[in-house]
Amino acid sequence: MNIGILVIGNELTSGMTQDTNSSFIARELYEHGWGVSAVMTVGDDRDAIRGGLDYLMEIADALVVTGGLGPTVDDITTAAVASAFDLNLYTDDVVLKQLKRRFSRLNIPWTENNAKQAMFPEGAGIIDNPVGTACGFFLERGGRPVAVIPGVPVEARKMFSDGVIPLFRDKIAYREHVAKRTIKTFGRTESRIDQALSHEDLKIPGVNIGFYPRFPEIHLVVTSRGEDSRRTEENLRVVCERIEGQLYRYIFGYDDDTMEGVTAALLTDRGLTLSVAESCTGGLITDRLTDVPGSSVFLERGVVTYSNTSKVELLGVPASIIEKHGAVSEEVAILMAEGVQKLAGTDIGLSTTGIAGPAGGTEKKPVGTVFIALSAGGNSTCRRFLFRWDRRRIKEISSQIALNMLRRFLTIGVD
Amino acid sequence: MNIGILVIGNELTSGMTQDTNSSFIARELYEHGWGVSAVMTVGDDRDAIRGGLDYLMEIADALVVTGGLGPTVDDITTAAVASAFDLNLYTDDVVLKQLKRRFSRLNIPWTENNAKQAMFPEGAGIIDNPVGTACGFFLERGGRPVAVIPGVPVEARKMFSDGVIPLFRDKIAYREHVAKRTIKTFGRTESRIDQALSHEDLKIPGVNIGFYPRFPEIHLVVTSRGEDSRRTEENLRVVCERIEGQLYRYIFGYDDDTMEGVTAALLTDRGLTLSVAESCTGGLITDRLTDVPGSSVFLERGVVTYSNTSKVELLGVPASIIEKHGAVSEEVAILMAEGVQKLAGTDIGLSTTGIAGPAGGTEKKPVGTVFIALSAGGNSTCRRFLFRWDRRRIKEISSQIALNMLRRFLTIGVD
Repeated sequence: MNIGILVIGNELTSGMTQDTNSSFIARELYEHGWGVSAVMTVGDDRDAIRGGLDYLMEIADALVVTGGLGPTVDDITTAAVASAFDLNLYTDDVVLKQLKRRFSRLNIPWTENNAKQAMFPEGAGIIDNPVGTACGFFLERGGRPVAVIPGVPVEARKMFSDGVIPLFRDKIAYREHVAKRTIKTFGRTESRIDQALSHEDLKIPGVNIGFYPRFPEIHLVVTSRGEDSRRTEENLRVVCERIEGQLYRYIFGYDDDTMEGVTAALLTDRGLTLSVAESCTGGLITDRLTDVPGSSVFLERGVVTYSNTSKVELLGVPASIIEKHGAVSEEVAILMAEGVQKLAGTDIGLSTTGIAGPAGGTEKKPVGTVFIALSAGGNSTCRRFLFRWDRRRIKEISSQIALNMLRRFLTIGVD
Repeated sequence: MNIGILVIGNELTSGMTQDTNSSFIARELYEHGWGVSAVMTVGDDRDAIRGGLDYLMEIADALVVTGGLGPTVDDITTAAVASAFDLNLYTDDVVLKQLKRRFSRLNIPWTENNAKQAMFPEGAGIIDNPVGTACGFFLERGGRPVAVIPGVPVEARKMFSDGVIPLFRDKIAYREHVAKRTIKTFGRTESRIDQALSHEDLKIPGVNIGFYPRFPEIHLVVTSRGEDSRRTEENLRVVCERIEGQLYRYIFGYDDDTMEGVTAALLTDRGLTLSVAESCTGGLITDRLTDVPGSSVFLERGVVTYSNTSKVELLGVPASIIEKHGAVSEEVAILMAEGVQKLAGTDIGLSTTGIAGPAGGTEKKPVGTVFIALSAGGNSTCRRFLFRWDRRRIKEISSQIALNMLRRFLTIGVD
């Protein structure tokens, strides 16, 4: 069962925007046991859209169309699809009412161009958009389902997974059973992870292991495919277990887990409290932790002590120590972690200080020098790093290491 | 002059790898004044490649093919292209010798499957690969040039820019000038921006305006194309000026500008200092500001006062006020901004307090209630918002509004 994907948008054919929807959709289809015959990207142009639809309907058993459903004049997908399939457009009163209600709830004045988003080809079913204004729709041509969804990635992903996949499941036969697990690692490069795996042990028919670097993490996606569902699941379990045996030190989570989510869960489960003193990470650690619902239970405070004065005033780091060792030093990192822990009265204190660049480096402490410290139960530990990335990546990897230090402290103690 | 792009690889149609080549190639073509008729992605499959070639040669004036030129059995692009164009394959002795020399230089044992990379369709010209083993090739069909290059991104980019672009320049006579400007807005939805523009004034031949929502911003990309370079630039200037006249209140930057970058530049230029007290944004405001190199010049400190105690201790907000009005209130937001400004001794204090959810809402203060305050020169201002997004988006829009309040304060004073 092969599916075609048509992606529509001038921002894509001009290279202005990197399309990520088609890759997401292809992976989802693949993981459901279907294949992709072709992905075509065209601009917001009626003839180009029609050409793409005709070609893909010729070679595929089903079609996913994404992009061009917005309210502005350049959004012509609905009209182009209707015209290609010789269908008239109608206004759906229920959707129109919902749209107007949404606008008034969000206190956004209603403008008439938005009514376009309530228009659909005759006979089309509507695909709900729980995260935006533009609904999608689906129809069938010669027994082949066609689903049309918006191009905004967060909307496209949600609507594809929740709206289109169940529809395709109803309409098109399953080829294979597919079971999948994502193993998330941090602390080793892709090639070293690859080398650490003994691939012979992992060769089980129908099981594939893909490497996906997601800076600063490496994700391993294990996919097991087969006709028998029990066997497929069992093969997945066996391979994942073997990978865990070989990489356990670097695995921090699975599937939808995040480093901050896993760390937050550990803190919550143990009833421990945390305070954070950040210099070079500039608030990124607490930003990540506060992305986790319920983080107020364990996060007492964070301080972004960018100036020396603030390190003295908010953390009690003696000015003489900063003068002697420099603000970017092991001594100051440890005093920051201890200071925030003590002043906030929390179980754990975490700190970062470093030179994110591009300026500010010296011979002894070049750009990319970062100290990360953790203080708990009367003990403190500090590690020094030298990163060769840009400013943003130095912040990202530093926040990741800080969270990982905390996670490992909570699971196995200081290491 | 429109060009087709054919991208080949099973790793792409399975969604295992995100294709970035076609976006790069499209942007390069666009910036050279050509357009892209369609991008098609197919797997390493002879029929699918042939279908793609046929379709694109039908609709495009030239073709770029990328991927599937490696040494392994699944790399079949050269053979598939030759067969689609009814050409035989031959081995190029010069390329073969170069390949063998390269292997011996890198101490890699020569294996016979590598000889495949010295085979080309009869009559094809060779495109050098300065960064890898697989050369590309080009040929012409009915006066339309076809260029074939590898899929490894670093090789594809280098060979496209250095090998294919000069070739197209020779072969494709007509070239347009292109001038482009991105206008970045915040504070109005896409449809209201669209409505605020008087489109009649903006209709100048060769000038196109595209809308690109980048939550929480709306970007307008204005492109001007034409044969005369001076006229092209002038048309761009005129349209941008008219858009500015209509949207000036919502425009915060251009091209590579970011909200945090623009705000940071204003602070730096005016020699003003800032401190930030964040509750619901959890450090995101200082995280964004510290992404800007040199932010230590104006950012004295940030505090993430997640607990009530920390609001009392770090900001001097009286516990009685928190008890009376709640931590999420106008009173507390203002005292937070004033407190951080005073204690840090900065020119400006900025604060946020709110309920990011999903829990913690009440009838009077539902999830999504956020107060944002700014304090400077003895005056304070506070605004109340109600957002209906998820936790992360509430943080993002709150940080954006806080930075925008600051930006507007620095340009026109409190509004």
